[in-house]
Amino acid sequence: MKATSIEPKIITVIGVGLIGGSLALRLRAGGLASRILGVDNQEAHASKALELGLVDAMMSLEESVACSDTIFLSIPVDSAVQILPNLLDKVDHQIVIDLGSTKSDIVAAVRHHPRRGRFVASHPMWGTEYSGPQAAVAGAFQGKSVILCDVADSDADALEWAKHLFHAIGMHITEMDAVAHDIHAAYVSHISHVTSFALANTVLAKEREDEAIFELASAGFESTVRLAKSNPDMWLPILRQNKDNVLDVLNEHITQLRRFKSCLERENWEYLRELMQDANRIRRIIQ
Amino acid sequence: MKATSIEPKIITVIGVGLIGGSLALRLRAGGLASRILGVDNQEAHASKALELGLVDAMMSLEESVACSDTIFLSIPVDSAVQILPNLLDKVDHQIVIDLGSTKSDIVAAVRHHPRRGRFVASHPMWGTEYSGPQAAVAGAFQGKSVILCDVADSDADALEWAKHLFHAIGMHITEMDAVAHDIHAAYVSHISHVTSFALANTVLAKEREDEAIFELASAGFESTVRLAKSNPDMWLPILRQNKDNVLDVLNEHITQLRRFKSCLERENWEYLRELMQDANRIRRIIQ
Repeated sequence: MKATSIEPKIITVIGVGLIGGSLALRLRAGGLASRILGVDNQEAHASKALELGLVDAMMSLEESVACSDTIFLSIPVDSAVQILPNLLDKVDHQIVIDLGSTKSDIVAAVRHHPRRGRFVASHPMWGTEYSGPQAAVAGAFQGKSVILCDVADSDADALEWAKHLFHAIGMHITEMDAVAHDIHAAYVSHISHVTSFALANTVLAKEREDEAIFELASAGFESTVRLAKSNPDMWLPILRQNKDNVLDVLNEHITQLRRFKSCLERENWEYLRELMQDANRIRRIIQ
Repeated sequence: MKATSIEPKIITVIGVGLIGGSLALRLRAGGLASRILGVDNQEAHASKALELGLVDAMMSLEESVACSDTIFLSIPVDSAVQILPNLLDKVDHQIVIDLGSTKSDIVAAVRHHPRRGRFVASHPMWGTEYSGPQAAVAGAFQGKSVILCDVADSDADALEWAKHLFHAIGMHITEMDAVAHDIHAAYVSHISHVTSFALANTVLAKEREDEAIFELASAGFESTVRLAKSNPDMWLPILRQNKDNVLDVLNEHITQLRRFKSCLERENWEYLRELMQDANRIRRIIQ
């Protein structure tokens, strides 16, 4: 894929927060956009995105769509499902790419839309526990995976351009159907957020001496609990849309925790060692 | 505390793995040791520590203690409890500092020892999920907390020298009794390891397509599961010694997870939002 052969385009980012803002930074740095337009219904985000130079201008959805080549949708997944059909109504040649963490509901929302082909469903596997335009990260997405879902439903040119953009910002592309995506995402992302939220509540509920936590908190604690800082406005819709898969994984996780509990209660140290050795096999997956 | 006014000492590190090896690097870099002697019953660790230049020489316990000023004990907490009384039998003027993640059993093991005053019980709140001398980290401990326990039982000169060393490698000192330490450590370190081990087993048990996990695994997943790579030889004795406190926190954690489960099952989205907002309060503690 020759990046140099493709002219930069006018790109709209709907939702100039952590994901949209970071994407805008990468698109600009990579010379992929001749102009970046922002759309955001939060006035504070809009002005912050302008102030930080993430976008060239903030516009209404209608205005920006009319003059764009590519439109990225980076808003909470419940709003994305609501907006996408109306957005495709307004689209002619433009390409619309969503970036949400769940995929089944969004592809279902436009399955029979006459402009379905202009839409590419994606999930870049990158994020932080922070939110808003001020959380945008210059080196975001680099070296990470992006999942493209139900690609056969996208027009060839739309898919090709989406792949070009994701490659150009350093991402590896994996294709998967939306249902499989949501199952996998429950394991490798959504459950981590649930356990982090629950771990934060565990510590906050039992430990009243905050000063002591602060003094003692180790790097290990920070890494397991940092996702608990994540924004509920983003995560509630994700857990809601992916409820069944998250419940499956959560039930399995509670079962696994009960095994550790039972080992401690019965002082079954040999089995406790086995459980930890089993867990060590995760080294095959994350180095 | 004037580092320059104190002469470097001959220091023995018993257990030249992640913690002992990292400490040796810091002591040498800080000009705090005129000579660093290593003791390790694992031949592979001994030769690796020499090869990496972590220590000047490997010796038997008896030899090294006889010619040292300060002895650090950085071995699994069950072995530390066993060795410490014999070690204090051999000590005259020397100072012995242990670095284990549990403190009640070790202080109990030498409570009535005639040389108890030469011992300082410490827990530096630093570590990684790796182990062995090759895991030693040059910038370890910097900016982290170290807990000193039951300090009234240590001789004044021993305590002062221990504090000097920890300050000199950039640590903040907190004093606490050993029982309180073990309660706090269950919250801010031990539970994080249990949840990480259990999360790894959850994903490995349910997800057979390792390739898919590998492709999809996000930074969030990596951070919540990385502690699952930790060494069972180190962590089994910690969980065993701190069983009652870890069980308390684990029971609370399972209760918290059940709340998330119940919200999802009953589609109680308002309460799910509240649980996440509660968890967000962890921002006060970790930035």
